[in-house]
Amino acid sequence: NAMLANGNEGGLTRKGSMSTGYHAHRFSDKNAQMERVAALLKEKGFIPQELVDPEVQWFYGNLGIDDVYFQTQSVDTVAEHVLSLYGAKIFAFIKSEHSLDINLERETDEGAVYIHTSRPGVTTLSGTQYEKRMDEKYLDRSDTKAAYRLESYRSSGTISNSLSSSLRCYFISRCQFVKSDPTPEEATNIDLVSDRAFLELATQNTKDIYGKVMQEVLKRTGAVIEVFDVPSSREKRLVIGYRQRTTQGFFSSISDLYHYYELFSSRKYVEQFSNGVTIISLYLNPVPNSMAPPIETSILQVVREASLIYCLPITAFHDLFQLGKLSLQESIYAHVVWIFTQHFINRLGNDYVSLSSLLDSSNPAHAEVLSSLKKRLRSETFTREYLQEIIRQYPDLINMLYVHFAMVHYIQPKEATIRPSLSFQRMQTYQPLTDEEIAEKIKHTVQNTHERMVFDAILAFNNHVLKTNFYQPTKVAISFRLDPSFLPASEYPTKPFGMFLVIGSEFRGFHVRFRDIARGGIRIIRSRNREAFSINLRNLFDENYNLASTQQRKNKDIPEGGSKGTILLDMHALDKPKVAFEKYVDSILDLLLKGETPGIKEKIVDLYNKPEILFFGPDEGTADYMDWAALYARNRGYKTWKAFTTGKSPTIGGIPHDTYGMTTRGVHQYVLGILRKLNLKEEDIRKLQTGGPDGDLGSNEIRISKDKTVAIVDGSGVIFDPDGLNRTEIDRLATKRQMINFFDVSKLGPNGFRVLVDETNVQLKDGTLIDSGLKFRNEFHTSPIIDAELFVPCGGRPESIDLSNWKALLKSDGTPRFKYIVEGANLFITQEARLRLEKAGTILFKDASANKGGVTSSSLEVLAALAFSDDEFEKDMMVKDGVLPEFYKKYVEEVQATIENNADLEFECLWKEGIRTGKPKSILSDELSYAIVRLNEELQHTSLWDNVPLRRIILEEAIPDLLLERLGLDTILKRVPESYIQAIFGAYLASRFVYKYGIEPSQFAFFDYLSPYLSKVNAK
Amino acid sequence: NAMLANGNEGGLTRKGSMSTGYHAHRFSDKNAQMERVAALLKEKGFIPQELVDPEVQWFYGNLGIDDVYFQTQSVDTVAEHVLSLYGAKIFAFIKSEHSLDINLERETDEGAVYIHTSRPGVTTLSGTQYEKRMDEKYLDRSDTKAAYRLESYRSSGTISNSLSSSLRCYFISRCQFVKSDPTPEEATNIDLVSDRAFLELATQNTKDIYGKVMQEVLKRTGAVIEVFDVPSSREKRLVIGYRQRTTQGFFSSISDLYHYYELFSSRKYVEQFSNGVTIISLYLNPVPNSMAPPIETSILQVVREASLIYCLPITAFHDLFQLGKLSLQESIYAHVVWIFTQHFINRLGNDYVSLSSLLDSSNPAHAEVLSSLKKRLRSETFTREYLQEIIRQYPDLINMLYVHFAMVHYIQPKEATIRPSLSFQRMQTYQPLTDEEIAEKIKHTVQNTHERMVFDAILAFNNHVLKTNFYQPTKVAISFRLDPSFLPASEYPTKPFGMFLVIGSEFRGFHVRFRDIARGGIRIIRSRNREAFSINLRNLFDENYNLASTQQRKNKDIPEGGSKGTILLDMHALDKPKVAFEKYVDSILDLLLKGETPGIKEKIVDLYNKPEILFFGPDEGTADYMDWAALYARNRGYKTWKAFTTGKSPTIGGIPHDTYGMTTRGVHQYVLGILRKLNLKEEDIRKLQTGGPDGDLGSNEIRISKDKTVAIVDGSGVIFDPDGLNRTEIDRLATKRQMINFFDVSKLGPNGFRVLVDETNVQLKDGTLIDSGLKFRNEFHTSPIIDAELFVPCGGRPESIDLSNWKALLKSDGTPRFKYIVEGANLFITQEARLRLEKAGTILFKDASANKGGVTSSSLEVLAALAFSDDEFEKDMMVKDGVLPEFYKKYVEEVQATIENNADLEFECLWKEGIRTGKPKSILSDELSYAIVRLNEELQHTSLWDNVPLRRIILEEAIPDLLLERLGLDTILKRVPESYIQAIFGAYLASRFVYKYGIEPSQFAFFDYLSPYLSKVNAK
Repeated sequence: NAMLANGNEGGLTRKGSMSTGYHAHRFSDKNAQMERVAALLKEKGFIPQELVDPEVQWFYGNLGIDDVYFQTQSVDTVAEHVLSLYGAKIFAFIKSEHSLDINLERETDEGAVYIHTSRPGVTTLSGTQYEKRMDEKYLDRSDTKAAYRLESYRSSGTISNSLSSSLRCYFISRCQFVKSDPTPEEATNIDLVSDRAFLELATQNTKDIYGKVMQEVLKRTGAVIEVFDVPSSREKRLVIGYRQRTTQGFFSSISDLYHYYELFSSRKYVEQFSNGVTIISLYLNPVPNSMAPPIETSILQVVREASLIYCLPITAFHDLFQLGKLSLQESIYAHVVWIFTQHFINRLGNDYVSLSSLLDSSNPAHAEVLSSLKKRLRSETFTREYLQEIIRQYPDLINMLYVHFAMVHYIQPKEATIRPSLSFQRMQTYQPLTDEEIAEKIKHTVQNTHERMVFDAILAFNNHVLKTNFYQPTKVAISFRLDPSFLPASEYPTKPFGMFLVIGSEFRGFHVRFRDIARGGIRIIRSRNREAFSINLRNLFDENYNLASTQQRKNKDIPEGGSKGTILLDMHALDKPKVAFEKYVDSILDLLLKGETPGIKEKIVDLYNKPEILFFGPDEGTADYMDWAALYARNRGYKTWKAFTTGKSPTIGGIPHDTYGMTTRGVHQYVLGILRKLNLKEEDIRKLQTGGPDGDLGSNEIRISKDKTVAIVDGSGVIFDPDGLNRTEIDRLATKRQMINFFDVSKLGPNGFRVLVDETNVQLKDGTLIDSGLKFRNEFHTSPIIDAELFVPCGGRPESIDLSNWKALLKSDGTPRFKYIVEGANLFITQEARLRLEKAGTILFKDASANKGGVTSSSLEVLAALAFSDDEFEKDMMVKDGVLPEFYKKYVEEVQATIENNADLEFECLWKEGIRTGKPKSILSDELSYAIVRLNEELQHTSLWDNVPLRRIILEEAIPDLLLERLGLDTILKRVPESYIQAIFGAYLASRFVYKYGIEPSQFAFFDYLSPYLSKVNAK
Repeated sequence: NAMLANGNEGGLTRKGSMSTGYHAHRFSDKNAQMERVAALLKEKGFIPQELVDPEVQWFYGNLGIDDVYFQTQSVDTVAEHVLSLYGAKIFAFIKSEHSLDINLERETDEGAVYIHTSRPGVTTLSGTQYEKRMDEKYLDRSDTKAAYRLESYRSSGTISNSLSSSLRCYFISRCQFVKSDPTPEEATNIDLVSDRAFLELATQNTKDIYGKVMQEVLKRTGAVIEVFDVPSSREKRLVIGYRQRTTQGFFSSISDLYHYYELFSSRKYVEQFSNGVTIISLYLNPVPNSMAPPIETSILQVVREASLIYCLPITAFHDLFQLGKLSLQESIYAHVVWIFTQHFINRLGNDYVSLSSLLDSSNPAHAEVLSSLKKRLRSETFTREYLQEIIRQYPDLINMLYVHFAMVHYIQPKEATIRPSLSFQRMQTYQPLTDEEIAEKIKHTVQNTHERMVFDAILAFNNHVLKTNFYQPTKVAISFRLDPSFLPASEYPTKPFGMFLVIGSEFRGFHVRFRDIARGGIRIIRSRNREAFSINLRNLFDENYNLASTQQRKNKDIPEGGSKGTILLDMHALDKPKVAFEKYVDSILDLLLKGETPGIKEKIVDLYNKPEILFFGPDEGTADYMDWAALYARNRGYKTWKAFTTGKSPTIGGIPHDTYGMTTRGVHQYVLGILRKLNLKEEDIRKLQTGGPDGDLGSNEIRISKDKTVAIVDGSGVIFDPDGLNRTEIDRLATKRQMINFFDVSKLGPNGFRVLVDETNVQLKDGTLIDSGLKFRNEFHTSPIIDAELFVPCGGRPESIDLSNWKALLKSDGTPRFKYIVEGANLFITQEARLRLEKAGTILFKDASANKGGVTSSSLEVLAALAFSDDEFEKDMMVKDGVLPEFYKKYVEEVQATIENNADLEFECLWKEGIRTGKPKSILSDELSYAIVRLNEELQHTSLWDNVPLRRIILEEAIPDLLLERLGLDTILKRVPESYIQAIFGAYLASRFVYKYGIEPSQFAFFDYLSPYLSKVNAK
């Protein structure tokens, strides 16, 4: 695309014989149509006869409507419009004799017409904002199924000489696409994807321009923005292309933008295409005799700020921008810091302080209570409105702080070497202030401590932004890489390694990680109503932080630390999770990749200055987007794209947990461990399972186990058989992933039963009456009917067993009803309930230990992705047409073996430590994680890593053998990023050591542990 | 008003020659006007000539606009209207040929016209709701300054035969009153207060009816509702009168009401009067061929439900009512229980439970933390929207619970002895369910525990309503007297004695008291923004409860226990505190007084069944309404009206605290106590005082003290003089109640200074630079400049001294800077800071002990009010023309002596106990209160009260001597309610005993204490 690449060289616009976008060739039978319109109106008789002709001529003549319109509209429609305009005149006349401000608006599902008087280049805040309505009713909703195109004209000259206002009219009509849902190839062919009306009258030049723009839009994300000269005038033609529904209120906000630079538009076109592309054309002119900078310079400003508008068309400070109190960047900056302060300014208040002085955080029960209280004690002094009020009061401080921000992160666009850009000049006029001076100025400007805290927080924000895509010409959302040292230690005891803040028009989001190499899921949060939104918003960061540190503990076997991403959808975007996710990923990638394409992805200022690689995983609401993210990262040239996400589909090398029962293998290994220790035979152990054959864990649990499963509880109800459910039947369900309402009841034993959730008043054989299946199902795991030694929760709502109902799991004599519990489902039992069950004698392994098979599988999936080159990866790891590559099959088995082995090691360690310390396993499991995590951190500061022969020996054990045979160690070391190798080294040493020597090893334990390796080192 | 009183006897409407409200005498030159209108239109030329005349005739002929309109409107206006209508026709035509739904609306500041098609008796929810807009833009805002009257007509017959819809038109115009602000006498004269247009055409009959209605409205609160027959038709004329701005959205809601009973209105009039009265007339007819009950019955229903609408025109479930899913009562009931559940369903959650198991609530520091945490730990599961969703889902349950409620509190209107009312029949069809059956039904209907908790809470509500004015025909808000036993003890340790819930259209409010005889202020709460409102709403009851129990402790010297009332204004009524207060008082009085005027105040169902008397006091935002409340209670026939409120103006027997420095006397007595104990002379004690000569406490402190005041801090700044401020000068300021910026600085000593809050960069003599006066003032009490032994805070924000800055009150060697602190201002120092100051050696008396002079004064004000008959009261207690009755003067002195004596007794006791136990006085003060309160409670269960001679001896000591000389004991016993006398007896014994024997009296202390009284008993 050489042509376009230099298309933007400094925006020199080409001279020559090209004419405008829509050609004005004469319409031969225009007059004929004119008489038919006039005739139709006369016979309708609403307008006095002698006024019909002048009205029609006026309409045709000097409304500046060009012939395209007349050509496409039927005589009836034109007559209707003339008539409606006449109606509007009557009203205008009645309102007041001497000022004719016409105000016509007609809206239908098929289209709309707006005609009203307006002074060019003035944004009117008062009165209904027409363009905003056009956005909400027609443009924002256009998608490939129902799309609306728009034409807008400004009457040349004025209605009468005494008035300086002219008429502006908008015509919106529904699109008729040539091909409504094109194939991917057709999707780039403009003749197939356009609207019929557009095709008839578009010049070839326009079609070429739109074609090129369209391809750009389809190739990348974000808006494509072009500028063209209109021959023999200072008029500029701005062409903007983007994907439908990736923004809202763009059309009206763009008007505010060029009004800001005192430009007005003579004509505006909005075109929709069936391949999901929207293209806008604006013909811009300088407002006559204005003091604003000349259009040749301001148009460049408009071009670059349009991308900001694309990201955040509406901000809380948009009106200040419209009033000119803030520039666009400043209003967006104000919006950003407004969001920042919402999440970080509410201290925990001195209730928390006096509370933690009374409780001591070293004992786990107290710590548990403290941390869950934290959620509630965030004081509510700074509400969102209040923060807005405060920020609104001091636009100058915002301006000062923005400059402080821009001085660091502003990127100098290359083509501006000849002439400096405008806002750059604005910055010149400020001599930069130091932090103290700014803090001092804030102190003297604000009136009370609240306001001061807000602006100090904004200053802190500036000082902790390491990189941002704020000044990236093309972006879809705004992202910041923050240095987390601003977080107060009293509230966030362990300091995160790195964190991101992403703000988009549909969402805001965070990404927090506790180690350079970290992994964790990306969660999308929907709020069911406004109140719930306020609550989610308030706890957004805390939740993200807690999930990340839980992940940190869960990842004790794998090299990656814990991380987590959260995306909170705004109330008006609850139906756009995918868009939000795509923008989230794209704008974070902006900060991970070095920008190499000037004008599109510039090189941004990087205060962190070390390469960062992130690893995303599936979580609530994002499980289906993992493929997209990986492939997209590849398109962006993200080197480790193969390892970017896990939970991918096998076609791109993903190892799905549920197909190979990765989590289940861990869970089942604990069960086998218990049986081995107490030498029991699996065949005659009776088991209760929550979570049915349709679930990921449920189905695999059924397939892998050989015990007597006496009961299964799932979304559809309860199936129970004291002599053990018929194994072939439940296997059948598990293979088909069907719930137990498909269970063939004829295969139930003599006193088995099945109760579904929508049944009521069911009489069981032993006479008990069940008045609602739903309740029966919800509380089945606490009902005395079951008689089982083993309970493996594979599904069910979190906290199903808590302080209020754990006693139901004990027999009357206080001994436990389920002697062994392996907790597959996350937090099925609360920590407090676990402790009490263990004290009552239950052998229980909590979720953090039992179900971490998934993370191991994901981690090895990543390692393979990092170690293979693309084509090796394609050959050995990508499943084509359902045939699994030989390597893939063997690798999956090795992953499974590793998971089982890890589960064994931890099981043995917990069992041994349990006997040694007598502590409950639910505590030991946490202590184990801390010990491994802490050990791993200490490892980073020792010289072990520098001992290369030792390093290689450890790595040969830590890296799966298949990869070693396949690629050899040296290749792996060359390809996998060193920080990742270091993480493997640390995690392997730390976890193996702790599993072998427990949580209180003697001083020499580590030495004894290393000796065999050292002797191997010396043997070489 | 004999005529009207029997006006309503069962609503028989009189036959005879009276005609309708607005007489239809022929308009002679109607046709002449018609030609001029037609002529004007022709020459304007918008309408084709041949259509002008038919348009004008159509307009005059069958829009059903009667001649009043034509008479009052100018030719221009009529022409304008015809023209606008023509314009609207054009649009209607364009929209669609075959259905002409005209839609004309013109709105100006002077008036408005709405003409549109509508089917009679149908409430259309979709589309803009015209009447709602008329309410918001014109009617709700009408007050004596700018008022709008309204006429509405329905076209008789239809536009064309094929259509069944007719035209409805509204004409709104601004009123021209004959006298715009009448004197009170003129206020009842209808000729002076009406609008000119109304006068010209109102029949004498209308003026009489309106005149009577107007007087009723002016006499009492609430709506006056009348029904008249229209001769020779089944049409009913509904006349409703009320005060402007005492409700909103009434006009549109009343339409929903009669639509509910399938009535439609042919004409509607809304008249405004300059005496602040609004009168509405509706001509109602049954919708042709409807199955609804006949208008003769439903009109009665409309009459009685109109008063509910007056109270709550808009509820959260209004749409269900409009859709007919709920009756009006049910929707209002649903609204009420919605509010109830908002305040009482959020448990504190099991964080609080596990927390209080970790902290032990017996030690005050822990208890302090627990109670302030309570505020935050109210869980946010049930948000308002969520509760609404849940209640919306089960209208049947609402219906069932409403019936359960109505079965108890429904009052049988007398005139219905002939025919039972409708909703009464509705109730007949239900056989009443018992509580268990209802609980059972709820259990089976709802799907999850959340929904169940909501409806169980509603059931609990029903079972704890002791009385309500829900079925009172005339009311201004809805009030409930609740039995507080539904409050969970874990959250509210001491059970209140009684509580009220009041719901009005501008507010919701509570009143809680801990003893039958209790007193406390009524506080109005305004929220600065929506978020703040949510927060205030959530904590409303807790705050009310805590304030009441603080009051309980503060009232230890007086017979009354603690109580408190809170009124939370809705966001849309932040500017109507007075209206909210009046409705609050009025609807509570509904529950205290027995209703004696059938049809207006019926006798309500009373499950409590004992007389209740309440005592209100001033608080935030209600200080100016105390007179009104007392006089209003008198008008309502509230026997103890004189004692109903305190803080009244002297003209009605109030003893203003600030004039006689009631609080100050207590405060000053503690200072004198300290000086006496340490035998120091007041003249050479140096004092710092916060709160200036303009304040209540500040001015009196200056007047009463003779010490060397070295510094005063107030709203305007700081005045300081180390040699003592010039006494005459500050006395001058105190008398004039001026802030210290009026201090004559020439009278400052050589190294005194004055710094005002709006000064910056002030250079003091000793060289220190003050860069902002505001900050200097805010932190002056902690600055090392002052050198004073005594600090008496008489003003300043609460918690000015807390954990973070109390150290500033110590010298470098750890000894206190102010050796003695007597805390006049409420909570100037936090409890934790007090304890640390005392530990550092400060002699400190906290607010609960030092500034309770006010409550004593109020209590004795009440006693006098209860003991005097009206005319004695008038002679001895009411100040006329500024001359104080002799008794009043002496009584004030006795009140002051009592306050000083109480302060002395408590001071001596605290001093003695301080030495004995070594505990800090801030703790002793609380223990003292508990001891007195607890003792008083134990007293109620002993037989001491029954020992009549002992009782009389005690009462002779406890009751002020002046009252005894004036009235003698027996008269007082006859007049003052016995429960109040008992309270005097108990409080006197308890407080005197504890003051004499301290908080840990020996077993015999009480016996020794009573012996002298018993010997007196026997001596007789």
